[in-house]
Amino acid sequence: MKSFTIQEINALLKGDLIGTTNQIISGLEQLENANFNQISFIGNSRYVPLWQTSNACAVIVSNNIKIESKENCAIIKVKNADLAMAKLLEIYSPEPPQFEVEIHPTAVIDETATIGAGCKIGANCYVGKNVVLGEGVILYPNVTIFDETIIGNNTTIWSGTVIRERCEIGNNCIFHTNVSIGADGFGYRPSEDGRGLTKIPHIGNVIIGNSVEIGANSSVDRAKFSSTIIGDGCKIDNLVQIAHNCVLGRSCIMAGSSGLAGSVTLGDGVVIGGASSIKDHVTIHSGAVVGGGSGVMGDVAPGKTVVGYPATDARDMFRQWVALKKLAKS
Amino acid sequence: MKSFTIQEINALLKGDLIGTTNQIISGLEQLENANFNQISFIGNSRYVPLWQTSNACAVIVSNNIKIESKENCAIIKVKNADLAMAKLLEIYSPEPPQFEVEIHPTAVIDETATIGAGCKIGANCYVGKNVVLGEGVILYPNVTIFDETIIGNNTTIWSGTVIRERCEIGNNCIFHTNVSIGADGFGYRPSEDGRGLTKIPHIGNVIIGNSVEIGANSSVDRAKFSSTIIGDGCKIDNLVQIAHNCVLGRSCIMAGSSGLAGSVTLGDGVVIGGASSIKDHVTIHSGAVVGGGSGVMGDVAPGKTVVGYPATDARDMFRQWVALKKLAKS
Amino acid sequence: MKSFTIQEINALLKGDLIGTTNQIISGLEQLENANFNQISFIGNSRYVPLWQTSNACAVIVSNNIKIESKENCAIIKVKNADLAMAKLLEIYSPEPPQFEVEIHPTAVIDETATIGAGCKIGANCYVGKNVVLGEGVILYPNVTIFDETIIGNNTTIWSGTVIRERCEIGNNCIFHTNVSIGADGFGYRPSEDGRGLTKIPHIGNVIIGNSVEIGANSSVDRAKFSSTIIGDGCKIDNLVQIAHNCVLGRSCIMAGSSGLAGSVTLGDGVVIGGASSIKDHVTIHSGAVVGGGSGVMGDVAPGKTVVGYPATDARDMFRQWVALKKLAKS
Repeated sequence: MKSFTIQEINALLKGDLIGTTNQIISGLEQLENANFNQISFIGNSRYVPLWQTSNACAVIVSNNIKIESKENCAIIKVKNADLAMAKLLEIYSPEPPQFEVEIHPTAVIDETATIGAGCKIGANCYVGKNVVLGEGVILYPNVTIFDETIIGNNTTIWSGTVIRERCEIGNNCIFHTNVSIGADGFGYRPSEDGRGLTKIPHIGNVIIGNSVEIGANSSVDRAKFSSTIIGDGCKIDNLVQIAHNCVLGRSCIMAGSSGLAGSVTLGDGVVIGGASSIKDHVTIHSGAVVGGGSGVMGDVAPGKTVVGYPATDARDMFRQWVALKKLAKS
Repeated sequence: MKSFTIQEINALLKGDLIGTTNQIISGLEQLENANFNQISFIGNSRYVPLWQTSNACAVIVSNNIKIESKENCAIIKVKNADLAMAKLLEIYSPEPPQFEVEIHPTAVIDETATIGAGCKIGANCYVGKNVVLGEGVILYPNVTIFDETIIGNNTTIWSGTVIRERCEIGNNCIFHTNVSIGADGFGYRPSEDGRGLTKIPHIGNVIIGNSVEIGANSSVDRAKFSSTIIGDGCKIDNLVQIAHNCVLGRSCIMAGSSGLAGSVTLGDGVVIGGASSIKDHVTIHSGAVVGGGSGVMGDVAPGKTVVGYPATDARDMFRQWVALKKLAKS
Repeated sequence: MKSFTIQEINALLKGDLIGTTNQIISGLEQLENANFNQISFIGNSRYVPLWQTSNACAVIVSNNIKIESKENCAIIKVKNADLAMAKLLEIYSPEPPQFEVEIHPTAVIDETATIGAGCKIGANCYVGKNVVLGEGVILYPNVTIFDETIIGNNTTIWSGTVIRERCEIGNNCIFHTNVSIGADGFGYRPSEDGRGLTKIPHIGNVIIGNSVEIGANSSVDRAKFSSTIIGDGCKIDNLVQIAHNCVLGRSCIMAGSSGLAGSVTLGDGVVIGGASSIKDHVTIHSGAVVGGGSGVMGDVAPGKTVVGYPATDARDMFRQWVALKKLAKS
């Protein structure tokens, strides 16, 4: 466990130190649960009362919040306590799991694959024909990468994840556990005898930009033709479905259990709330926000916030909810 | 296949045997599908008519249900036919998949790991540094356990499941296939240049109590700091998302495809219906029930039942649905 | 990359060729993105204007759509441009990932397993006791098949997928990555001391018919007793949950992130829209359609379309939405 003095922490945060503590600070914790060698934080004034009874030896507080000092305790005033906390998490971050050897002898790596300098490949991984791994790529145990796929520098792939053939992955990406990239899209045509369905081949691929993170057990399907595209900086949570031929711009956010049907387009900076689903061929323009649990049936204008099912301008939908409540009581 | 006489079954169930059968009973089945050497059950009087035409040689019936006997067939009257059926499933339960050898030679186990007595570890598993497995832990093939994780006695982990580093798992738990435990929580802050998002490290872990069951393809994220906690006896179904810093009390139930956003708190005995989602930072107090398909936006009082989107007291919501139906017809 | 002349393509599609092109056509692409050696298609007249500015050297157009020819470009008129496009995808389809050896030496295959002629088994697979693989079965790396399971001819199973013991899988099926088949159903009874829940054993299995496709990260639970059944020709998308004892007829479609609770019955040709959920014990009769994002609480009559939450006849539900919108504005 790493530990720091209050002075070291204050120097990192470039804050104003009020009072001091001699404790060596070994971590951070909420006010209610902190012990004497932990630091806490207050980003909202409603948590101030918890400071009086907290065991934390120090607290980081946003400048606009009034707080009283306590004996033998330190207060660090900063512009934004939440951001300061995120910075502290970085310095307290423990080392990720280590590799005994760079390339584990049980990994099966095709002789035609190109493995960049500094790559680490764990036990029982499979790396197919003509795969190209950039520099510093980490494959934890039990990862499967299929033929012709290209993975950029410093991308990390956790166990159980499978990336299918001919996909292109950028630099500095993180794929969490049990992710599926590049499975066939979901498309069928009536069979010749009219009695069933015939699979439409999906001959495209998935292209993922730089600094993309994809959560555990999520899936991104390959395109029917051309590519399913996830732009630079997109952050995808767990159990998210992204169907064939979707195109996501830069820095979109999709929260847990949400999903895009086929050929959905997201602009830049779109936010999709948890458990929301978007109908096929819909476009959600840049800066738009879809509230959690919504079902989006049509295009959403830039910067607009929609919510509900079918998803509607948020203020209109709130009015509908209020009107219905009133109606039921009348 | 195991088989029992009607007398053996009646003794187990401590029921009242009416009539008898000479059949050796080799299993249980619904009335419509049963054959002569199977036993069936009736827990609801509407199924009584099926008894006359069923091929089953015996039937277990709740005491409060009237039923006529048939020649060469047996009826066992019990307090609760559903519970009796559950007991029968136990005695008819086949052996789980067997291990040829206790520790398969293809499993990669770090030399610093502690493996309790009677553990079984299947082909191609990975067990990292300083992992501690209690006694009688079963890892089926292709399981991945990362560094410093501790797993209690008699816990069973099915194939494809990945448990990340520094997690703590109790005794007698069951993790089904392709589960993800301890992936990073979903948290970002605006990047310094204001043009993207920077990952917030998640340095906490996941703590899971005793007798917890987690369904196939579900995920439980590690905490930002401190722990994501799942209390003793919780039962989590398939494709469920539990985000970072959630805290579940004892014996909560989450049905399939449901999800908790970050920092949700569930009391004891909370029931979350299938495909429901709960907004971040919401508290659902002990004994509360969330109906299937709901979207919960705010706290739920103890013992209360809510349903719909946004989730509301069930009776109020039913009134809203009725009122809207009436309005649309007027 | 495969390539064809316009004459070869026209012969395959049995279309009417208008104009011609000397380009060797190496693939297909949307009008906006196509380059000179690609062919595009128009199945809806609103895309006709894109043809004038497209770089595509050829376009496939449905007979009923009016379009003007361009110099050095070809037009192929067909009955249905979408179906023609699906046929083209077949001829342009690249080879799937190849196997260096038929049975990879790192695969762990129990000596009691039966492996049909022409099977291919990838690195680090596990095949348990008495498993029977028909002819031409393909297991990509890191697949796990448990004891006594039977898999039909020419079925393909992608990496990360786990099929539990005693399941029966038909011919010509495709299981995508990280699928879970045969995990225990979700069922408990109050424990004897009344303070918790006791697991109900699930001693049944999963039976899957011929030509069934199951998407990435989906799960199908085994039955409490008897079988969870998926009929011939069903197509299941990604992240779909099918609970214990569900019975699906022939050629049902379940789109992404949808789910069936326990003991749901689907007739033949039922369509379940994306992100929809169906309550336990509900029957959805043949030919019925459930719109995306719906929550179905009760039985659905044959051929009927329902939508919304709780799901209602589609026309009635649209009227409700309109009425509510009007009410909120009044």
